[in-house]
Amino acid sequence: MDDRPIGVFDSGVGGLTVCAAVRDRLPGEHIIYFGDTGRFPYGTRSGETIIRYSLEIADYLVRRNVKMIVIACNTASAVALDTLRSRVPVPVMGVIGAGARAACGRMGGGAVGVIGTRATVASGSYVKAVQAVRPGTAVLQQHASLLVSLVEEGWTDDEVTRLAARRYIDGLYDAGVRTLILGCTHYPLLKGAIRAVYPDLDLVDIGVEIALEVQAVLREKNLENAGLSGTIELYASDVTDTMQRLKNLFFGDDGSVLRKLVISGAD
Amino acid sequence: MDDRPIGVFDSGVGGLTVCAAVRDRLPGEHIIYFGDTGRFPYGTRSGETIIRYSLEIADYLVRRNVKMIVIACNTASAVALDTLRSRVPVPVMGVIGAGARAACGRMGGGAVGVIGTRATVASGSYVKAVQAVRPGTAVLQQHASLLVSLVEEGWTDDEVTRLAARRYIDGLYDAGVRTLILGCTHYPLLKGAIRAVYPDLDLVDIGVEIALEVQAVLREKNLENAGLSGTIELYASDVTDTMQRLKNLFFGDDGSVLRKLVISGAD
Repeated sequence: MDDRPIGVFDSGVGGLTVCAAVRDRLPGEHIIYFGDTGRFPYGTRSGETIIRYSLEIADYLVRRNVKMIVIACNTASAVALDTLRSRVPVPVMGVIGAGARAACGRMGGGAVGVIGTRATVASGSYVKAVQAVRPGTAVLQQHASLLVSLVEEGWTDDEVTRLAARRYIDGLYDAGVRTLILGCTHYPLLKGAIRAVYPDLDLVDIGVEIALEVQAVLREKNLENAGLSGTIELYASDVTDTMQRLKNLFFGDDGSVLRKLVISGAD
Repeated sequence: MDDRPIGVFDSGVGGLTVCAAVRDRLPGEHIIYFGDTGRFPYGTRSGETIIRYSLEIADYLVRRNVKMIVIACNTASAVALDTLRSRVPVPVMGVIGAGARAACGRMGGGAVGVIGTRATVASGSYVKAVQAVRPGTAVLQQHASLLVSLVEEGWTDDEVTRLAARRYIDGLYDAGVRTLILGCTHYPLLKGAIRAVYPDLDLVDIGVEIALEVQAVLREKNLENAGLSGTIELYASDVTDTMQRLKNLFFGDDGSVLRKLVISGAD
């Protein structure tokens, strides 16, 4: 039993899907979420800058006495995970490893597909992570930038979204992909739309997968907090309408409040 | 005659449509363009932050000895125009006033429609600007955020885009709007797509309209630079693929070069 909170951070609003998945899986845990909306997006920034931002946020979370840090941001997971692990005195988990392990565990063979932002795809992080788990696996990638905007617009169940999804995913599907990693924290909100178009595609939700890994690690280290009375504190470096809307979507009626917090240099 | 440059700025790439319209109208003028791609989008940021960014950029342009500043960004026009006018020693023009005056000049009566980002619509700036010119005019607004992402994705002639345009514009059209202000600098690139769906809608291109007003003010103040030998300097706080693509679209073969420039705090 350990009632210290879990820290979750992202470059923006997308990590709320991870936060919600952790809450659903571990209702006894207290969660502190930080979305760096004021410096969003990380995907277009240099590696050095992303590591600096991530360390600033991790330092804040450690000062808040967290027992674990979850990097809910694909870009920061790809770039800053190793540095954070070497500098932070608590376990650090990243979404990319969790997504890759889940895809390898579930696939029957053949190619794994990945959709993500341009930056995530360009980094090749999921390709490396999948091939580290299962060498020789073919991994086909496709950026799907507009799907992020569609989620932020709230058009999660819309013909426009299904059509856009087809523009991005048809090529992967035609190439034989049947296991698709949703490599961006916004995409879990499009699972219904993607399933409507591709009923036989196995979608890997990185939020659900990292929640499973968080639970396993907390159990293994005897750090779990049992019960159903976990609380959520939500912070963002710029409190935007989109942030507020997604916050309401996930945590609308549980009393959680979204507060502005500038950690360092975040403008 | 005054050969000092005109400064044009935007939160990102969209202002290039304004830049191109000014260049077409005033081929003798030197233009310095700054797109704040490193801190894009402004539409989701707080008013305080937008004013600070705008002042930083205006200070830079004044140091570059501009004779006029054109705010090509709707969000910054809405939020920061008055502050800039009170702080900057040269004329400052904003796209919102130009768009509103043009709509009032062209409409035969009835309602004026406006599409723009959420921030532009929430600000009510076009409503106020239209009603200042022609009191009592009904102004119907609709945010059309996703159209920005569609332009940036390059899907300017695509079924997805036409469908998305209908989601946003059908309501305005059905309510009787026949004069529609394209209240975002990205939208001129969608004129073809919108006309394909609504052939009888009169589209107000704010880039073309502000170029006319820039010309009028320069003439009135005797600040014009005659001739055809104007140059264009293009800067962006982050040189992205999208920026490069749109730069090539508008200024591809005129020798202009896109350079990275970080003005302040933009990382």
